[in-house]
Amino acid sequence: DESLVIGTHTLRSRLIVGTGKYETFPQMQQALDLSGADCLTVAVRRERLYDGQGQNILDFIDLARYTLLPNTAGCYNADDAVRVARMGREILRSLENAGADWVKLECLGDPKTLLPDPIETLQATERLVADGFQVLVYTSDDPVLARKLKAAGATAVMPAGSPIGSGQGVLNANNIRIILEYLKADDPTYPVIIDAGVGTASDVAFAMELGVDGVLLNTAIAHARDPLGMARAMRAACDAGRWAFQAGRIPRRLYAQASSPEEGVISLRPYSS
Amino acid sequence: DESLVIGTHTLRSRLIVGTGKYETFPQMQQALDLSGADCLTVAVRRERLYDGQGQNILDFIDLARYTLLPNTAGCYNADDAVRVARMGREILRSLENAGADWVKLECLGDPKTLLPDPIETLQATERLVADGFQVLVYTSDDPVLARKLKAAGATAVMPAGSPIGSGQGVLNANNIRIILEYLKADDPTYPVIIDAGVGTASDVAFAMELGVDGVLLNTAIAHARDPLGMARAMRAACDAGRWAFQAGRIPRRLYAQASSPEEGVISLRPYSS
Amino acid sequence: DESLVIGTHTLRSRLIVGTGKYETFPQMQQALDLSGADCLTVAVRRERLYDGQGQNILDFIDLARYTLLPNTAGCYNADDAVRVARMGREILRSLENAGADWVKLECLGDPKTLLPDPIETLQATERLVADGFQVLVYTSDDPVLARKLKAAGATAVMPAGSPIGSGQGVLNANNIRIILEYLKADDPTYPVIIDAGVGTASDVAFAMELGVDGVLLNTAIAHARDPLGMARAMRAACDAGRWAFQAGRIPRRLYAQASSPEEGVISLRPYSS
Amino acid sequence: DESLVIGTHTLRSRLIVGTGKYETFPQMQQALDLSGADCLTVAVRRERLYDGQGQNILDFIDLARYTLLPNTAGCYNADDAVRVARMGREILRSLENAGADWVKLECLGDPKTLLPDPIETLQATERLVADGFQVLVYTSDDPVLARKLKAAGATAVMPAGSPIGSGQGVLNANNIRIILEYLKADDPTYPVIIDAGVGTASDVAFAMELGVDGVLLNTAIAHARDPLGMARAMRAACDAGRWAFQAGRIPRRLYAQASSPEEGVISLRPYSS
Repeated sequence: DESLVIGTHTLRSRLIVGTGKYETFPQMQQALDLSGADCLTVAVRRERLYDGQGQNILDFIDLARYTLLPNTAGCYNADDAVRVARMGREILRSLENAGADWVKLECLGDPKTLLPDPIETLQATERLVADGFQVLVYTSDDPVLARKLKAAGATAVMPAGSPIGSGQGVLNANNIRIILEYLKADDPTYPVIIDAGVGTASDVAFAMELGVDGVLLNTAIAHARDPLGMARAMRAACDAGRWAFQAGRIPRRLYAQASSPEEGVISLRPYSS
Repeated sequence: DESLVIGTHTLRSRLIVGTGKYETFPQMQQALDLSGADCLTVAVRRERLYDGQGQNILDFIDLARYTLLPNTAGCYNADDAVRVARMGREILRSLENAGADWVKLECLGDPKTLLPDPIETLQATERLVADGFQVLVYTSDDPVLARKLKAAGATAVMPAGSPIGSGQGVLNANNIRIILEYLKADDPTYPVIIDAGVGTASDVAFAMELGVDGVLLNTAIAHARDPLGMARAMRAACDAGRWAFQAGRIPRRLYAQASSPEEGVISLRPYSS
Repeated sequence: DESLVIGTHTLRSRLIVGTGKYETFPQMQQALDLSGADCLTVAVRRERLYDGQGQNILDFIDLARYTLLPNTAGCYNADDAVRVARMGREILRSLENAGADWVKLECLGDPKTLLPDPIETLQATERLVADGFQVLVYTSDDPVLARKLKAAGATAVMPAGSPIGSGQGVLNANNIRIILEYLKADDPTYPVIIDAGVGTASDVAFAMELGVDGVLLNTAIAHARDPLGMARAMRAACDAGRWAFQAGRIPRRLYAQASSPEEGVISLRPYSS
Repeated sequence: DESLVIGTHTLRSRLIVGTGKYETFPQMQQALDLSGADCLTVAVRRERLYDGQGQNILDFIDLARYTLLPNTAGCYNADDAVRVARMGREILRSLENAGADWVKLECLGDPKTLLPDPIETLQATERLVADGFQVLVYTSDDPVLARKLKAAGATAVMPAGSPIGSGQGVLNANNIRIILEYLKADDPTYPVIIDAGVGTASDVAFAMELGVDGVLLNTAIAHARDPLGMARAMRAACDAGRWAFQAGRIPRRLYAQASSPEEGVISLRPYSS
């Protein structure tokens, strides 16, 4: 019952992780395993199938275990993004992976900040939806744009917590709250996923406590001093945040109300009043 | 190797939980179990051994499983705190519980804010250390006082993140960092534990990421809408924060440096360059 | 030299204030005076020329003193915004006010949050620029959109600190920093003005310290308990923030480096070494 | 009516500034002037009456204009602090300066962090009060200690916003709020002054908005890139924060309530409904 449903896909884990930036494929393989994720996002490109050691990433991913989520990283306009999305679909079909029918759309403003381009992103969303894709769309935390992306048919909206790789966590919780209000008002299961900006475990817990449905991250694990330890931390943090959100936290106060609770007290005279 | 060593005690869990404020003893019992804690702090008093239903808290705590950490909640000066600490020792000796030789010292300034009294706390620490106690001392986040408490022989220093029951988490990370620098400079295993103020799971993860050795909490679980769910969340958050601290997070940046990583890329032409 | 130049307009004050939400026109008149502003933004509409007391706002604004900045508040698409902007131009021409050639463009997503609509805002900007307007455009803090608005010919970009009337100040200083980097990189005098979200004086100072060129606000003064006192506060805060930005603040540190400055010392033996 | 009354002293400005760390005495002189302060705090010591150029600080301070507030900087225990305070009294008496009867008590924990020592500070306060001083006491933001210092007879309590010279502003607004509640509950004019930690103008405005009576600072001006500009900024920020506090800010909200105010509107059909 605690699965994350995104369109026709059902994920056990609410953590979706990227596959880039690891020192070695074996390290990546172990980190993915420890993260608990069952969905991996992979960049789609024409070149560099082999890394320096002649290794192919697909030799290190168990396709029976993971659903791949192809992404359009490196695309700076709608045309490129649509072309790359289709290329990803072909590849995943050839691999017979369930991820062939969806895409993580990234349509970036520039290679310096890697912030999303709102206009091209909306156009690409419309075109990919028309082309039959289930579109998970990376976007800024602009609530009005988030609403337009859902209206355009996006299967999930994925606002950035902060810029890709910045490690600053969720900088504007207010915007995320408004996005959740907008997108879930009459559709409480609509998936909103924080994508980008996570720096450490508490960022993931904090994001999940806001009520988002999942978190997508890559650099925070891959570039940690110890990626394997951080992968394990992220898994636990995602659970912690989700469970805390569902459990309903205590309110914040300047200080607690005076209370002289006598429960939980042990006494010199046990078993007698 | 990941045990938390406090004086002569070794705990498996870095989460220490209180036993007060639950609606019922069975609810408390379940929450304690789900929290993963193996050390419980209990208030020591003369009265109210039985609750309204004629139940005794000790009927709901498996003394073979948990080490009790008696606390001096409700004491507003050193005299009271010393007397109550001794009373707790007697009780735990009679129960043959390992917690007979230590105490969580609370010496409060007033019943309204439940903030600690620095002067009485330091005096009580000195007296209890002289009396053979291992003293785990609840204090403000004042770094100089924290250093004096260690110098007075405290076995562990436990700065408040924020006022008891306030749910505000760690308000002044700067002070906690200086406390860690002061107390661990030439003694890296000296235990520093955040005691009080936690509101939700991300607060615990954040505290642990600062490098503290553990977190002690009560209200955040007992008064959550669903205490059992929150207990589970806190356990995961404590692990997440600890592991993230050890794994070494990425630095914070305005935005990521431009990078065009080609690793982690899938391609239309697999297995060929 | 410390004037704020926006297109062909030169303002003495870096605070631009709105004219709405005051209890009475005389109160508005006094608050505008105390704010030090020489540019006022006014909403353009067809109806309600007179208020309940049969008073007209223009009877309370000295047109020889203030440049009016007509705004398109209440517009939810580009068509409406363009029509209202033209209406404002006609009105200001008939008043022979210098503000006839510019407009504060607001193109909102919905009447609930009053957040800007990025798509309609960009379209309206392009159309108004083509129509000869100097466009000061209210937008979210999305850096890529801010860059597109400048590229579309906007005379000034005015990102929201937080939602209109929310009183939360600048929620995402990181985005404002990137906007400044984008828009001023090769054009350091290009005006970036924080519009919306200010709650109190320190919010204005903080915004100006980031390096923005000005702040536009209304509710924070008009709905303060004492609007006249708050107007005076905002004027001082705008100066304070600007001057601090120019003066160059000290860096933040965990604690100061050890220093034993002997300067600034008085002694028992004055006038002798 | 807006004077700051501290014991028998009445100050026009709520900004109190230090005299150390300037590059030259003339620069100090100008910065003091621009800050608007009428009270200066000066360190009392035996040595170094002349600086490298053979200049004496007192040649650069107009004693008819400024009240001096001698401080015990560099003292690490109560004995030293009491001795230095008495030395300052002698010096100021010889100068016939009104500041002979008060002292800013600094009793530091160590030269590295310059954080105050709570125990020695309280002892020194008691001794100096008994010796007839009006004691303005630098302390941590520990609310219970602040209350004890007032109870010990301190004329003003001066909690640190953050460590001396750290430039971090007020790190724990919650503690400052509780201090104000404690110390002003039945004594609303009791002076609470933020001493230490200010980095820039918005920090001063923020502190004053909390309701403190004044701010004391030194490094933020003296070590700014342009000390004169920053002095001017601090003066404006202090006013801004005070006025905003008195004016009563608007509440914070996720977003504004829907409102369609028609006031403040200009129209195509002026002077007709």
